[in-house]
Amino acid sequence: MSEFEIIRRYFTRASSSAVLGIGDDAALVRVAPECELAVSTDTLIEGRHFFAGADPYPLGRKSLAVNLSDMAAIGAQPRWILLSLSLPGADEKWLELFSRGLFELADKHAVELIGGDTCRGPLSICVTIMGEVAAGRALRRDGARPGDDVWVSGSLGDAALALAHLENRIALSPDDFERCARALDYPVPRIELGRKLHGIASALIDISDGLTADLGHILERSHVGATIKVAGIPRSAILRRYLPARAALQALLAGGDDYELCFTAPSSLRAEVKALARKVDVPLTCIGKIESAGGLRLLDERGHAVDMELRAFDHFA
Amino acid sequence: MSEFEIIRRYFTRASSSAVLGIGDDAALVRVAPECELAVSTDTLIEGRHFFAGADPYPLGRKSLAVNLSDMAAIGAQPRWILLSLSLPGADEKWLELFSRGLFELADKHAVELIGGDTCRGPLSICVTIMGEVAAGRALRRDGARPGDDVWVSGSLGDAALALAHLENRIALSPDDFERCARALDYPVPRIELGRKLHGIASALIDISDGLTADLGHILERSHVGATIKVAGIPRSAILRRYLPARAALQALLAGGDDYELCFTAPSSLRAEVKALARKVDVPLTCIGKIESAGGLRLLDERGHAVDMELRAFDHFA
Repeated sequence: MSEFEIIRRYFTRASSSAVLGIGDDAALVRVAPECELAVSTDTLIEGRHFFAGADPYPLGRKSLAVNLSDMAAIGAQPRWILLSLSLPGADEKWLELFSRGLFELADKHAVELIGGDTCRGPLSICVTIMGEVAAGRALRRDGARPGDDVWVSGSLGDAALALAHLENRIALSPDDFERCARALDYPVPRIELGRKLHGIASALIDISDGLTADLGHILERSHVGATIKVAGIPRSAILRRYLPARAALQALLAGGDDYELCFTAPSSLRAEVKALARKVDVPLTCIGKIESAGGLRLLDERGHAVDMELRAFDHFA
Repeated sequence: MSEFEIIRRYFTRASSSAVLGIGDDAALVRVAPECELAVSTDTLIEGRHFFAGADPYPLGRKSLAVNLSDMAAIGAQPRWILLSLSLPGADEKWLELFSRGLFELADKHAVELIGGDTCRGPLSICVTIMGEVAAGRALRRDGARPGDDVWVSGSLGDAALALAHLENRIALSPDDFERCARALDYPVPRIELGRKLHGIASALIDISDGLTADLGHILERSHVGATIKVAGIPRSAILRRYLPARAALQALLAGGDDYELCFTAPSSLRAEVKALARKVDVPLTCIGKIESAGGLRLLDERGHAVDMELRAFDHFA
């Protein structure tokens, strides 16, 4: 199977939203008037972002999900993707499952694959995503203000708990592992929530590297600090059962891969946030407060500082 | 050196053309009114697209050059890039030289790096490029018509000749190798030419996989054929000296990596093509004719079919 055959058979579909899709030197799209183009890229590499031999169906899905999450995190409507795929060989079964996973999620969000490239090499998947956001309305990291509430969507830590199990840092029961692995393998990007936070959120980010690290980016960019009450961070019943094990606490505070959203909003808008939670059917929980004093303070139930070294994943640490 | 430190130190510059550059969940850009966005991606992988241990300065430059060439090949003005970099480690010297090569060429074309990602893994470089082209004016592959002339820019084969030498398929003198290696390591994307072919070219492509393969894409997409007179294909004095060696002929006809442009144009516009060649100071040579009968016919000086199996590089062949 040639490079062109791979592209034709597994990755070429008619595009309804692009001026020109796969098959020329570049794809062409028209960005809606009064919109800005939001663009982001995320690579998944075998042995770094996923285990060697990972199931290709969830992998195809997740390659797109992590990029969709970046669109959610800036409040954009995802529209188009490019896929740059490096493959050790032309494995038909793998390609069929991978592309199915990718396209199923793409279809769900009306996102179209309009270009990319394919070559032989170590397995790596680089997706570039483009989306539209009304001009001046993108939800950036730098808008948090002292007095704002800090919110997170869904619940945190299950994906990292599954990873901790796979790395033998904790031992989950088979049932618990299966449910946590679902969070790890099938993250749900919060697209609708991100888009509807316009006019409510003052700063927004997705939690891909862990709550403390990602909230840290908001604090740094906004030149503010925050106090978080750890007991209030939403978590699953499973994670709760494994607390206070260190790996479970790490998963909750510093685990990435859940792809929930963390945002700040003026406390005067609490009712709006709660109404939005009902509207998009995603739990939203207030976990703390933005303050003018820099830094991130984590408090336990008794108001004592949580004494724990939290380090987000760093590829070069 | 952490991931964020690498990004900050080597790849973060203030952007004057983006609404939001490096440092948020996505970059934001505004596409000019009445313009379409042209977008393309190209990955370079160690051991596939460049030799292990390749000099990082030309590598940084070339990673961008091959992407700029895609913008040239659709007639777009390149504007922004994303860089997704997988590195075996944080080698400061390598990063300094690689980023210098990249930014020098970016500055030359007023292209800005606005995002990307960095992680540890096998050395691979994925650049996504975005450019602007007046709506409806992109120069695609599907516009060639019977009777059109076939043109190529510059001269072909030197880069492939250098590669043939490195792979021991031909033996160049040290001086000849040095000059050919320059074509291989420092390709010049034909941006200005591509943009000024609006209103002249009926179809356009860049020669990255070899003349016969890339012209083949135009023929296929345009549902036409062509006859090319091999003797008329522009080549350097060096390449001429190594002909009729098989590797030299292969380099001329099927060698990629020169990143010249191949285009078709109505024969009524020959004077315009020649005037453009003078204006942009790039030689343009008519090498054949588009015909309604499908397929590509290569003729030697006596009008006989060139009997040679030409295969473009295929990563999965």
